[in-house]
Formats: sequence, structure tokens, C-alpha cells
Amino acid sequence: MNAAQSVAAVVHAGGAHLPAMMARLEARLAQLASGHGLALAKEANATIAAGGKRLRPLLLFLAAGRASGGALAAAAAVELVHSATLVHDDVLDGALVRRGHPTVAARAGRGMAASTGDLLFSRAFAELAANGRADHLRVLSEASSALALGELAQRADAWDAEISEERYLERCELKTARLFEASARLGALEAGAPAAALGAFGSGIGLAFQLLDDVLDVSGPQERTGKRRGTDLLDGTVTLPLILARGRDPDLARIDLRSVRSAQEAERLCDRIEATGALEEARRRALDIVVQAKATLPEMPIAQRSAFDLVADGVVDRYA
Amino acid sequence: MNAAQSVAAVVHAGGAHLPAMMARLEARLAQLASGHGLALAKEANATIAAGGKRLRPLLLFLAAGRASGGALAAAAAVELVHSATLVHDDVLDGALVRRGHPTVAARAGRGMAASTGDLLFSRAFAELAANGRADHLRVLSEASSALALGELAQRADAWDAEISEERYLERCELKTARLFEASARLGALEAGAPAAALGAFGSGIGLAFQLLDDVLDVSGPQERTGKRRGTDLLDGTVTLPLILARGRDPDLARIDLRSVRSAQEAERLCDRIEATGALEEARRRALDIVVQAKATLPEMPIAQRSAFDLVADGVVDRYA
Repeated sequence: MNAAQSVAAVVHAGGAHLPAMMARLEARLAQLASGHGLALAKEANATIAAGGKRLRPLLLFLAAGRASGGALAAAAAVELVHSATLVHDDVLDGALVRRGHPTVAARAGRGMAASTGDLLFSRAFAELAANGRADHLRVLSEASSALALGELAQRADAWDAEISEERYLERCELKTARLFEASARLGALEAGAPAAALGAFGSGIGLAFQLLDDVLDVSGPQERTGKRRGTDLLDGTVTLPLILARGRDPDLARIDLRSVRSAQEAERLCDRIEATGALEEARRRALDIVVQAKATLPEMPIAQRSAFDLVADGVVDRYA
Repeated sequence: MNAAQSVAAVVHAGGAHLPAMMARLEARLAQLASGHGLALAKEANATIAAGGKRLRPLLLFLAAGRASGGALAAAAAVELVHSATLVHDDVLDGALVRRGHPTVAARAGRGMAASTGDLLFSRAFAELAANGRADHLRVLSEASSALALGELAQRADAWDAEISEERYLERCELKTARLFEASARLGALEAGAPAAALGAFGSGIGLAFQLLDDVLDVSGPQERTGKRRGTDLLDGTVTLPLILARGRDPDLARIDLRSVRSAQEAERLCDRIEATGALEEARRRALDIVVQAKATLPEMPIAQRSAFDLVADGVVDRYA
């Protein structure tokens, strides 16, 4: 099952409210994107319109269990924060391509990217504030702080090949898991359900998502990922595959990342990491985390549970 | 009266609550700055600690009229948004020096600056969310959106010397006036007072502040501003002095800003702008706006009114 199919399957299995809510989300995002003067905010619009799988809103709607304006606003806000982060990450990385399109930073310069991200952030909080939901704002602003701290940690760790697995996992937690967790919690809040268990599920699949994303940077293939293998290595970003490979191959442990300068050299390093079996090991860990996440789900009707399982599988399947 | 003296005068005249609130603000900002792991957030901390005149919090406390936890959180949030914008502006401008210190972008790279700004933004909203004040969040998120739109508009207008005065003023409104307006409104909300009149006062002095800031970029002197004259011109940012000077000197109207490449050429252009009398005209307009702003103030006790007048004068005096 590919990504689009697994999302469709969740929408099908997840209850009568999901298709309508996903459609309302797109309409709301399009409305937000065009509400600030087309010329001014065109980079923000393009970023939102370029889409993505809307995994976080999907999780939120599923946790909410029924249609509501509160869930819609929260899902739009989560997706706006996610988009803001993508735009700012590209400033950070100097990345040129995202989701198969040139990045805002590449199209319009880093300055425009910084302000476009700020606009998306501000609109996210405005969306929740308009609803008067201070409890929602609390969850989202904490997740948004965590995201920024995760990016800062990643930058602080750059080029340090000796960082520990624990440190790496802490970064993934901040950078990715927390917004998935927040999505699940926001849905639960909207449903008036206890947020902790669903939050733990969201956190788990978010963590697995990041691990698999980092595997993909090493494994490619470029035709599927839309970017060359080894871009993290060229950025000095040390991820689980390299950490594990260094433990398995003493020669790899001696490599100074700063000596890897060209795309060709990065691809060769990817091959060497792959040869150690580190990618299988990293994938296995991600799958274990997903299994654990599923096990934390509270009692719920079978249809809803199977939809949560499908979201979890969707995170994995993208990389199968 | 210099800037520090006028702030001190407001604190003295503005009521018994002001000195305590300003001190509590510094303590709260220091606490926020150190609450996220010193190593991680050190650039955010440095930005907050570098300070500035805290004009927006001062206006907010004055409008609130008495000490309260709500006013404190709102003032901290406003100052965090302001700081976030400064950090991101430096990404936009590639600026190297701010408030006499190297910018985050210069010290740690644009990527760090982007994430540091995101952290400051997120903390701003977290601060209000913790207080459960959705009404405050509404005011701040709208102002924060306006700020980002103002930056985007400025970038979209770059190098276009033919932009109108109206367009320039609209940009100043978005980029600067709205956060001053929000500060006054937040204080009024906290006081349970009508927010519109105080908001208009805040907006006026914010607008004057930006006009005078733009005059200063042309007039210098560098020893007072901490940066060379004509940095806006080198960025392609067209401001009121150039707009007015172009109307007064046909030779100036023919200059293509892209041909101004060195700091020396920018300074020569500053001299030519100054020679037209455009700086006096721009200053006069700013002073008129301040006079109008004072006139919009509602009935209030004389001590409070004189404190508002001092804030307004403080905006002007910095550039006298």
C-alpha cells in the first residue's frame, strides 16, 4: 500500500466524519492562504498548497472521533506550524527542493523564507485564538517550542559524529514526535477524552516517522525521495544509520564528516553505511516503536482502532 | 532628555505599579530565557538579554494602569514577539550588528537565527496560553501576522524606487505600528477599559517610531545608531526620506538603487537626500503623527496622561 492509499484507507475506516473533515481542512487552508493579499503571501500560499500527506491533521481528526469546528481549527493550526517549520528548515539547511518543488528559500531567498514562516506561525496561533481555545493553544505552543529546540539541538550537534543514540533520539522527540503527540492530544481534548494515551501513540509514530525519514536519506532511491542520498551527511547532521554503522565498522568511525564534501562522496558513504546492515537495524527499531505505540492505544471500538493502526502503518509503509 | 531618561521619567510619572512591573518583566524574561537548556537556547537568551528600551511593555503596563499577572505575561509575550522579529529581520537583511552586538545571524549563522526566532515566537504564545487568555492571544497573533506581512511587503517592494508614500506608510503600519497598537490594547484589555482609543494612540506612536527610524538610517550619525548610514538603501529598501527627496530633486529620481553598491556610495546618496530637506520634512510628519496620537487619548487622570505623553515624547526624543 503506498502513502496515498494508506491515507485513503484510514479515511475510509476512520468513521463517517473523516472524509468531510479532510475536505473542510483543505478548504480552510486554501482560505487562510489567500486571505492576506495574493501577491504578499504567495510563498506562504504555495507552501500550503504544495500539500503533503496531512498526516498530523488525519491523526487529530481520528482522535477527535467526530466532526467539529474546534477540531478543524486545531488541524489547520497544526498543519500551519508544520509548514512554517518546513519553510524555516530550508533556511537552515539551504535546501533547494522540498516535496518535489523548489523551496521558498531557493525561489525567493532566505529572507522571504524567514518571513513566510513567521506568517504561517502567526496564522496558526491566530486560528486557535479565534476559537478562544486556550487549552489548545497551550498544547500547540509547547509543541512548537519543542520543534524549535529540536532544530537548535540538531544545529548544535552538527559535524559531531560521536553524539550518542540517546541524544539523537532526544532530538527526534523534540523535532518530530512532539507535533504528532500534540495532534493526537488536540483531537482527544476536542473529544473530551483523556489525552495521555493517545498522545503517547502520536509521539511513538512521530518518532518512528523521523527514524524512517533518516533511513531514507541514506537508502534513497532519489526517484522516490526527490533528493539525492546523503544530504544529511553533507549538512553535518548525524542520524541513527551513521551512529549504528560507526559501532559496526571501525573504519567508518574514523571518518571526519567535514571531509565529505561532494554529492558523490556522500553517496559513497551512504553505500558504506548500508553495507554494515545499519539501515535494517534502524528500520527494525522504528517498527518496534510503532508496535509499542499501537500497544499503548486505549480501549476503543474496533473500527476506530483499525483506523489508528492504519495511520501507524502509513508511517511505515511510505518507506517499505 | 535621552532615551534612558525618558523611560525613567515615564516609570516615575506613570503610577506606583510601573517600577515594580518593569522589574518583574526583566525577571520573567530572564527566567524564560534560561528555561530551555542553556546551551540550546543561548542565542535566544542573548537576544532577550541584550535588551532594548522595552517601549512596548512600558506602553502596555501604562495602559493596564495597575500591576497584574496578566499584564506581566502579555508584556513578556509582546517583547518575545518583538525579539523574534529582530532575529528574523537579521536573516532577511543579512545584518551583522544589532543594538551594538553582532546579530544571531552573524554569530551563529542564518539557520540558527531562523530557529532562534521560532523559539522566541513559540515562547511568546506559550506565555499567553499558560494564562488562558484567548482574547490576549487574538490581539497578539493578529499583530504578529501583520509584522510578517510587513516584512514580506518590504521585500516585495525592494529596489522599486517608485513606490508611493501610501504604500510606504502601509508597510510601516504592518511592520511596526501594529505591535505598538497591540501593546496598548493588551493593557486596556487587562484594565477592562475600552481598547480602541488607547490602541489608536499606540498605533500612532508606533508609526512615528518607524518614520524616525528610517530618517535615522539616512541622517546617522553612526556613533549613535551603531550602524553605517544608508544600510536601507544598500538593501533596496525605499523609505520616506528617499520618496520625498525624489519629489524634490529630479536628478535623484533618476538614480537606479541597484547601482548603489558600496557603503561610500550609499553615504553619498544619504548626503544628497539630506540636501533636499527631505529629512526635516519626514521628521515633521512623524512629529505631527505624535501630536495627533496624543490628541486621541481618552479622558484620564493627569498623572496617567502625562506618562502617556512622556512615552510619546520618548519615541521622538531618541532622535532629537
